[in-house]
Amino acid sequence: MSGSSFGTIFRVSTFGESHGPAIGCVIDGCPPNIELSHSDIQFELDRRRPGQSSVTTPRKESDTVEILSGVFEGRTTGAPIGLMIRNADQRSKDYSKIKDVFRPGHADMTFQEKYGIRDYRGGGRSSGRETACRVAAGAIAKKVLLQHGISFIGHTSQVGDLKASTVELAEIENNPVRCADPEVAIEMVALIEKLAAEGDSIGGAVSLLIKGLPIGLGDPVFDKFDAVLSHALMSIGTIKGIEFGEGFDAVTMRGSDHNDKFIPTDDGISTETNHAGGILGGITNGQDVTCRLAIKPPSSISKRQDTVTKDGQEAEISVTGRHDPCICPRVVPVVESMAAIVVLDRLLIQQTIIKSQ
Amino acid sequence: MSGSSFGTIFRVSTFGESHGPAIGCVIDGCPPNIELSHSDIQFELDRRRPGQSSVTTPRKESDTVEILSGVFEGRTTGAPIGLMIRNADQRSKDYSKIKDVFRPGHADMTFQEKYGIRDYRGGGRSSGRETACRVAAGAIAKKVLLQHGISFIGHTSQVGDLKASTVELAEIENNPVRCADPEVAIEMVALIEKLAAEGDSIGGAVSLLIKGLPIGLGDPVFDKFDAVLSHALMSIGTIKGIEFGEGFDAVTMRGSDHNDKFIPTDDGISTETNHAGGILGGITNGQDVTCRLAIKPPSSISKRQDTVTKDGQEAEISVTGRHDPCICPRVVPVVESMAAIVVLDRLLIQQTIIKSQ
Amino acid sequence: MSGSSFGTIFRVSTFGESHGPAIGCVIDGCPPNIELSHSDIQFELDRRRPGQSSVTTPRKESDTVEILSGVFEGRTTGAPIGLMIRNADQRSKDYSKIKDVFRPGHADMTFQEKYGIRDYRGGGRSSGRETACRVAAGAIAKKVLLQHGISFIGHTSQVGDLKASTVELAEIENNPVRCADPEVAIEMVALIEKLAAEGDSIGGAVSLLIKGLPIGLGDPVFDKFDAVLSHALMSIGTIKGIEFGEGFDAVTMRGSDHNDKFIPTDDGISTETNHAGGILGGITNGQDVTCRLAIKPPSSISKRQDTVTKDGQEAEISVTGRHDPCICPRVVPVVESMAAIVVLDRLLIQQTIIKSQ
Amino acid sequence: MSGSSFGTIFRVSTFGESHGPAIGCVIDGCPPNIELSHSDIQFELDRRRPGQSSVTTPRKESDTVEILSGVFEGRTTGAPIGLMIRNADQRSKDYSKIKDVFRPGHADMTFQEKYGIRDYRGGGRSSGRETACRVAAGAIAKKVLLQHGISFIGHTSQVGDLKASTVELAEIENNPVRCADPEVAIEMVALIEKLAAEGDSIGGAVSLLIKGLPIGLGDPVFDKFDAVLSHALMSIGTIKGIEFGEGFDAVTMRGSDHNDKFIPTDDGISTETNHAGGILGGITNGQDVTCRLAIKPPSSISKRQDTVTKDGQEAEISVTGRHDPCICPRVVPVVESMAAIVVLDRLLIQQTIIKSQ
Repeated sequence: MSGSSFGTIFRVSTFGESHGPAIGCVIDGCPPNIELSHSDIQFELDRRRPGQSSVTTPRKESDTVEILSGVFEGRTTGAPIGLMIRNADQRSKDYSKIKDVFRPGHADMTFQEKYGIRDYRGGGRSSGRETACRVAAGAIAKKVLLQHGISFIGHTSQVGDLKASTVELAEIENNPVRCADPEVAIEMVALIEKLAAEGDSIGGAVSLLIKGLPIGLGDPVFDKFDAVLSHALMSIGTIKGIEFGEGFDAVTMRGSDHNDKFIPTDDGISTETNHAGGILGGITNGQDVTCRLAIKPPSSISKRQDTVTKDGQEAEISVTGRHDPCICPRVVPVVESMAAIVVLDRLLIQQTIIKSQ
Repeated sequence: MSGSSFGTIFRVSTFGESHGPAIGCVIDGCPPNIELSHSDIQFELDRRRPGQSSVTTPRKESDTVEILSGVFEGRTTGAPIGLMIRNADQRSKDYSKIKDVFRPGHADMTFQEKYGIRDYRGGGRSSGRETACRVAAGAIAKKVLLQHGISFIGHTSQVGDLKASTVELAEIENNPVRCADPEVAIEMVALIEKLAAEGDSIGGAVSLLIKGLPIGLGDPVFDKFDAVLSHALMSIGTIKGIEFGEGFDAVTMRGSDHNDKFIPTDDGISTETNHAGGILGGITNGQDVTCRLAIKPPSSISKRQDTVTKDGQEAEISVTGRHDPCICPRVVPVVESMAAIVVLDRLLIQQTIIKSQ
Repeated sequence: MSGSSFGTIFRVSTFGESHGPAIGCVIDGCPPNIELSHSDIQFELDRRRPGQSSVTTPRKESDTVEILSGVFEGRTTGAPIGLMIRNADQRSKDYSKIKDVFRPGHADMTFQEKYGIRDYRGGGRSSGRETACRVAAGAIAKKVLLQHGISFIGHTSQVGDLKASTVELAEIENNPVRCADPEVAIEMVALIEKLAAEGDSIGGAVSLLIKGLPIGLGDPVFDKFDAVLSHALMSIGTIKGIEFGEGFDAVTMRGSDHNDKFIPTDDGISTETNHAGGILGGITNGQDVTCRLAIKPPSSISKRQDTVTKDGQEAEISVTGRHDPCICPRVVPVVESMAAIVVLDRLLIQQTIIKSQ
Repeated sequence: MSGSSFGTIFRVSTFGESHGPAIGCVIDGCPPNIELSHSDIQFELDRRRPGQSSVTTPRKESDTVEILSGVFEGRTTGAPIGLMIRNADQRSKDYSKIKDVFRPGHADMTFQEKYGIRDYRGGGRSSGRETACRVAAGAIAKKVLLQHGISFIGHTSQVGDLKASTVELAEIENNPVRCADPEVAIEMVALIEKLAAEGDSIGGAVSLLIKGLPIGLGDPVFDKFDAVLSHALMSIGTIKGIEFGEGFDAVTMRGSDHNDKFIPTDDGISTETNHAGGILGGITNGQDVTCRLAIKPPSSISKRQDTVTKDGQEAEISVTGRHDPCICPRVVPVVESMAAIVVLDRLLIQQTIIKSQ
């Protein structure tokens, strides 16, 4: 309950610092009898891995996961799944200079004040490296959900001023920015490389599509589907905003335009439009859930910045080391993973209602 | 854990339907020895109450709260505080016609599918009426936090295309839309009244400012301050998006612009700008926390809409009854309250770290 | 999370002091579509009610429950059920003399030290009166579980040195001590009346039998069925010990005697004996769950006792007011209720495993 | 929330099977800035380790713990502490014969029915081997609590009919049964060896003493100190009963004897006797907390037993492998550890009350 666990029935508890011996997690409440192999998890980790393309950090981490428990003869047993990833590339000396100087935009100062101590190497616990554990856990959730026909598609919909103008889902994994518009993707790569050369970074937007959800997930009042999903996604360090369906565009809309008209279908009831983003009253309505996330420009830039030391003295800093000039491409699998963790948890909770009738 | 509770140490559990005998809540974990009177709570309930102005629903509810426990001789005792508000104006027959017809934009269909049964009167549990309990609990949290110098200021920053262009906090409660720009407020009232006359509704934006926060609130990884606050605020039925600091504007920014430069102050360390909205790495940094919320246009409109019945037959509906053409003014106290509940909970959790050192 | 809530999916949150306006609870996660009437709850409350016989306190409380939410047209809706019981007989002046004097065996001192304030009237929050809320919530759990063929039978198996020597379940409700041995029951009544006349009180034992449980309830490691049930039952103020199956008799047994031999049956697998009390590895094995509880003698006695005041001065006290000389008969429905709350919660949690396969 | 986590603020989540690659845990919410070394944890693990004496199983496990995170330059940082113990002695073929035959007294049958699959090797997740993780986490809790003057002393107070007749705490670690009566300890060893030679096992009792507790730990109603401690201790697989203070002896006592008389002391208020076992109204009263636990005879015996196969056929079994004929000596550190986890968690929770006044 001190921030490192997420979920009620399907529950993930993570540990690990950027430059400690290892990172990992315990996944409790995974349904039993699910086929699960090392490669199911490794595949997703490789999508998040540093060093995968010209637009990501050159830090070299193979991010090889080891399954320590919970899987027997290729199947989950219902016991907690322990996962561990050794930290391979721990060039700690890169970080000795940030021991006493607070990097702007980072959590160095807030961790120091909160705990009175911090592992400063690479940001320690506050490093984005912890998201590898989210992806590992998410890979398992995705595997379970695929059996229920539920899938997650994240993509970079904007980098700086460059917006995707088409959405071709099949193209996403074909370019290094994970953009669904292959032509804009080329411009995005150029922009990111330009910023990197300048020692600067750039923000962006990631869009998420969840397909195949049944009607009924999410709980009224405090645990609405969008509320829990917002908790999960906003907990990804780099995200500064989230919107569902029309989101902030709803600000200028009228009720008569925003309301999605119900229509009868062969299967039951659908809606003609999906302004609501697949959620009514906090409960999934059977349409695709759509949301969009604001991704801030990475704080680690080599440009010189004014700052202060731990003791409150003025200082200058140029954050060298190996960093991402735009984090969108690597955030995509993290976003999908957190969404999968939420969906599986809510799907399991929903069983407690259906069965009791 | 089925959605009606929120918080870890300061924990609120609510109950009640729009047209049942009463709504209410249990507030556990409130600090003892805090002066608390009936009027502390009633004051905030009156800010949320229906029928308070020309731009809100004419439903008449005095929303008189009764304190059932947890307060002794004018002070909290540390025991759970039970609160109850009787539902006075239960014109249930207004709702008999929606027994079998699903209102577009509402949770009628999703509740029916989720539970196989629903109290359809006024939306039952899915009615915005449950937010009165949030406000009652929030009033208590605010009272406690005021002793720590922490305050919450919400205001309507946009209605349709009309944006506030100045922020005069003292003006907020002087106009019925709770806008910090008194001139634009007049235009907003006119716009809302026009929409109401047309039987339609309009969206808007609410901004929230939290002042006086210490450094250190929020927990790394999953329970970041912004993540938990997003959970709390996105659980308010009418909200479709949230952003902190620069929010979606960060999409087009560079790191060198977005990073807030640390500066030394007499008290310690501050930042020159506040693009981050008062949160670094999920932990409050001592600056004001700022966020902005997308409010959808209310779904209840008297304009005729096409829809379907419970049995999947095509139907038409005109949602009569008494409704708000723009919910922003009444959402303001709800937003402040949910924020106060989060802040007090995180403040109490933070004691476990400070004190244990 | 500050002690007034219990359960994960079926979750009960209580409030109320002995002499405040009301006590009550919120029951979240109750399955929908269950027939539930006022009398289902009142029936169980009447079993716990003070003043029901010569061996219980003459305090007069009708303990009339009001259902405030969650039930629509005679059926549960899945929304939280709010219940309230007004405190009728609030003779607060009886208690003014204990404002500054700590009653031995009671929580006056510990509450004062923990919170720095307390509602001293009748013990306030620490009064056994809060157990009425447990019984009300348990009545609902029992109603749901009866549909699954699960039932709860508590009885007084010992008072002082008097032990029941037969177990005739049909006799339990036929005598005021709720003893399954009607002959010993007569002696028990006599003993209790004698102690009452002496201004003293007496301990006892309550036994609990849970019938009809499926195989599979309870979760490995920390949430074993017996662990969670122990949490629930040991939280009843008057209970000082719990044992399952052979319990403390297992101390002197050999493995070859204690192990229950598995035997094949028409339905599947059973055990020849039930030394384990229906639980193997923390999971129900399909046999009856049996446990036994040590009930302390009530602390409120009119005999004069030495004690101290709030300020640490020596004092004498004779606890007058209206008290139970032996609490066993009234603990029986509380024990059944807490067990029912645990069983329903674990049954609902178990659906997440069964259904996910 | 599926049984592998315990605690609210100081929260332990464990993983691992008896014969998988490793066992381990994540400890979240540990106070920062506590000196913590590998040997602090290893010392306690060695007390629980198999093969430590003639009366324990000869299974050889060095149980070497690796700290994977949360400790930086010899101090805790407030980040979660990841711990891992590799399973060294995985003679899985010993267990192939129990793949299809249910061992009496074990969880083979209940796990199979609950999950539809199980890792049968050595009991898999249901093996007592998971308690090593409890001890590792408990070692950290003990280290923190020692700074607050709180200590935990467990000892074997009975084996079969042999009861300790004196309590010399200094003698506990000087004999292989961890008995506080050195003379009876010799008899206990002889009895256990006799049973082992017969291919049988024997039960016992373990007593626990917690010294140095402040007044005020534990929360009213459901999270009473004794209730939460019962949850924690009854979750240890081998324990069938628990009692506090006089426990089951209170059954025959009168209130005038059982009530502990308050007396003034130089420091404040104390009690003359401690029949209550250090807890009043579920809250610690500053006296030693005392409890006693019923330990069942281990279920693994080499004596031939009748049983059934997974398919419900009659079968015979002789549980060979390497087992403990009496588990008391090895349970002692597990009991202390679970108690330490509970005490630290409640101590941290209590900080949320004190500070807010």
